[in-house]
Amino acid sequence: MTQFQSKLLDEIKRIISDQRRVLWEEHDLYSYSFDASFGTYLPDVVVQPVTTDEVVKLVKFANQYKIPITPRGHSTCLSGGPLPVQGGIVCDMSKMNQKLLIDEEDLVAIVSPGVLTSQIHKAAEEKGLMYPPDPSSSGVSTIGGNLAENSGGPRGLKYGVTKDYVIGLEVVTPEGEVIRTGGRTVKNVTGYDLTKLIVGSEGTLGIITEAILRLIPKPPASETLMAIFDDLVDSGRAISKVLSSGILPSKLELMDQASIAAVENYEPCGLPTDAEAILLIEVDGHPHAVADEIASVREICKQVGAREIRMAKNDKERQELWKARKLVSPAIAKIKPTKISEDATVPRSKIPDMFKRLKEIRAKYNIDLVVFGHAGDGNLHPNIIADKRDKEEMRRVEQAVSEIFAAAIELGGTLSGEHGIGTMKAPFMEMELGTVGLEMMRRIKKAWDPNNIMNPGKIFPEPGQKLVLTDE
Amino acid sequence: MTQFQSKLLDEIKRIISDQRRVLWEEHDLYSYSFDASFGTYLPDVVVQPVTTDEVVKLVKFANQYKIPITPRGHSTCLSGGPLPVQGGIVCDMSKMNQKLLIDEEDLVAIVSPGVLTSQIHKAAEEKGLMYPPDPSSSGVSTIGGNLAENSGGPRGLKYGVTKDYVIGLEVVTPEGEVIRTGGRTVKNVTGYDLTKLIVGSEGTLGIITEAILRLIPKPPASETLMAIFDDLVDSGRAISKVLSSGILPSKLELMDQASIAAVENYEPCGLPTDAEAILLIEVDGHPHAVADEIASVREICKQVGAREIRMAKNDKERQELWKARKLVSPAIAKIKPTKISEDATVPRSKIPDMFKRLKEIRAKYNIDLVVFGHAGDGNLHPNIIADKRDKEEMRRVEQAVSEIFAAAIELGGTLSGEHGIGTMKAPFMEMELGTVGLEMMRRIKKAWDPNNIMNPGKIFPEPGQKLVLTDE
Repeated sequence: MTQFQSKLLDEIKRIISDQRRVLWEEHDLYSYSFDASFGTYLPDVVVQPVTTDEVVKLVKFANQYKIPITPRGHSTCLSGGPLPVQGGIVCDMSKMNQKLLIDEEDLVAIVSPGVLTSQIHKAAEEKGLMYPPDPSSSGVSTIGGNLAENSGGPRGLKYGVTKDYVIGLEVVTPEGEVIRTGGRTVKNVTGYDLTKLIVGSEGTLGIITEAILRLIPKPPASETLMAIFDDLVDSGRAISKVLSSGILPSKLELMDQASIAAVENYEPCGLPTDAEAILLIEVDGHPHAVADEIASVREICKQVGAREIRMAKNDKERQELWKARKLVSPAIAKIKPTKISEDATVPRSKIPDMFKRLKEIRAKYNIDLVVFGHAGDGNLHPNIIADKRDKEEMRRVEQAVSEIFAAAIELGGTLSGEHGIGTMKAPFMEMELGTVGLEMMRRIKKAWDPNNIMNPGKIFPEPGQKLVLTDE
Repeated sequence: MTQFQSKLLDEIKRIISDQRRVLWEEHDLYSYSFDASFGTYLPDVVVQPVTTDEVVKLVKFANQYKIPITPRGHSTCLSGGPLPVQGGIVCDMSKMNQKLLIDEEDLVAIVSPGVLTSQIHKAAEEKGLMYPPDPSSSGVSTIGGNLAENSGGPRGLKYGVTKDYVIGLEVVTPEGEVIRTGGRTVKNVTGYDLTKLIVGSEGTLGIITEAILRLIPKPPASETLMAIFDDLVDSGRAISKVLSSGILPSKLELMDQASIAAVENYEPCGLPTDAEAILLIEVDGHPHAVADEIASVREICKQVGAREIRMAKNDKERQELWKARKLVSPAIAKIKPTKISEDATVPRSKIPDMFKRLKEIRAKYNIDLVVFGHAGDGNLHPNIIADKRDKEEMRRVEQAVSEIFAAAIELGGTLSGEHGIGTMKAPFMEMELGTVGLEMMRRIKKAWDPNNIMNPGKIFPEPGQKLVLTDE
């Protein structure tokens, strides 16, 4: 143990009385050194607070001695948000999970940051309500992490993302003060919207200790259809036609040929591996409306040349259809050990152009590129499969990733639709935001966190910082 | 003309070549000295820019010489947002109204700030789309003003407010730099959400020169019902029961006895003046769903004791039912010349408590208090009718308004649901946000506008500032 660690530990043990919630042994620190993106960074100590008061004391201490402090949930993050890149304290919020209240009258949930997102889904559903944001990780990710990264998911198309459902927060500021933003009312225009500033700020503006989430009545019915296309361009036309027909599907997901092949190779689902694209479309709402709408969607897919359409007749068949989409991620992870999952997002109308650009990039750098994702809102997931031990391949991957970002921005899109910036995309921020845009964000960070202790090294690039996917 | 004005004018005429767009005569300045709230403040000069470049030059000039600059639309504001409380330049954005593009494929509208909100409604509807936010002023208010104040409206209950539909902005910062926030994609998590920070910041963080708005498919059908109650408490129970039944009405409006009496006195609509409350409920969506849902709403209203339920059979009857609600504002303005329109908002479950508190406040201060508004989302509009020439009455009104704010906050609500803070509610900000909460907002303002030239004197209270509704 270094002298710094030993001193740190003494102080922290004074703040956290239950010493089992202070971790410093090497294997513990290693467990907290990575997330689902790239790079490993050892913290000096890990603390698991369970009350706002403990968080306040920790942050005040960190701020006084200018020690970096990085809040963290279950670290399913795909962009490096919870990585302690400058060491210091990792503040593991997953044990602060006591509160999960559903208020049926006010249509809100009040939650502690360590609660799993899927627990909120379940609790809301038990009362006939729905918390719409549904990131793929919801079974294992904490709501605190979802809030920090403003997570999305397939339902974003119709229902929006995490931010659209957060109406109030309790936050410990980088100087260790407690503020309450927003409240229990859906309408609130009292001053600047700190709630929506903090959600998605990746833990750089404070630590969320409680959140008030807006709920909606659970749609009583849903229908799912799978449309198989020989031509990727036709699937793009189907998406456009559905969306301009007055129907807003609850999910509109796409799998390209490489995704289909990967799934069939991993666990055969009866998908045609020669098809260029599969669309999975779900509509939800009133039973009569849903029956009508799914018939229209079917008709549109037929018209634009789908070679086959599969309709689910019951819940079991619905789950079967969705199974293929859920298997994409595990399936492609089997091809090669390293998966770089991007979420560059383009305006809906530019999806065909983006596909063209991705095809060119795949050929140019000779990389394994699989494309799937939330096509309905332009939020594609180009995934590159590689082996990080192969340095030469990883250099090509770095270049390909840079070009994917450039393509998305050229097409009027954004670096990140739902995964966040973290460490991975920081070098590309100026390309999207311009010097002044980035500077205006930096001013907020400096004004709120003058000692730069709150999750430093995220979002804002260091001068000359480049994307590096190798460990050199 | 003062020497200051004369110098100012010389400089501004160098920036704005078309001299008809620079106003300085006394009658012009007077026209720009008020909004729909309280107080009159003369600017030194009024400028009507038509390009972003002109706005940039104006703001750079204002920043260099530390001259206050206040952006303004059509000034229907109910909280003092566009009042030039420190004089200087009023930047009238209403002539910057060239752009109104509807992109059906991306489901967005791209608009100049001077475009009327109702023009956006119309343009979207022509393409089968909808821009949901619908403040009562939409026929005369500019979208720029709606963005600055984050306007709401009756559809907020189901569809949310202005902020929920803004995905990108072009903004001139207080130092005269142009930034673009967000973009044309619904999902975007690239850095801090400057879009949602600027929307609702009441023109204190920059001047919006273009906006990208999200549109949705226009719901194909709607149904309206009017339920009349002898007991206000029963109407509250009806609201709760409807909202917890799984139905999310597109509008759920309430009129209390005083509103009903005012309307009948102003223009008889056949409303029972002895009823304690009227609810107007609209559901929209798929025709089958709508038919089903309005039948359920009717059943619920009956069960909780509505004495009469009126259903609209066609568009004409629907308009008839809504007419009563639309007449409330003009009707109460006839009672006495001064109308103080508040928008204190409480959690839905606290609406009955808020009614009780309002009744007590009315009796305590012997004031004319009328209550109506968007009951479905807790956004009531307590309106006090008075005569501002009666100083003694206005003192009582000031005290009553303070107590209304205190009651809303005590019940877990907020000062303002949709009208904004401006000058009117600034003295009450700390009561809701606490010292630190307000300080964190102030830090953003200082970091973005170091010379405090951008709409100064709004949102943040001066030390010791109190609500004053008289001209003393």
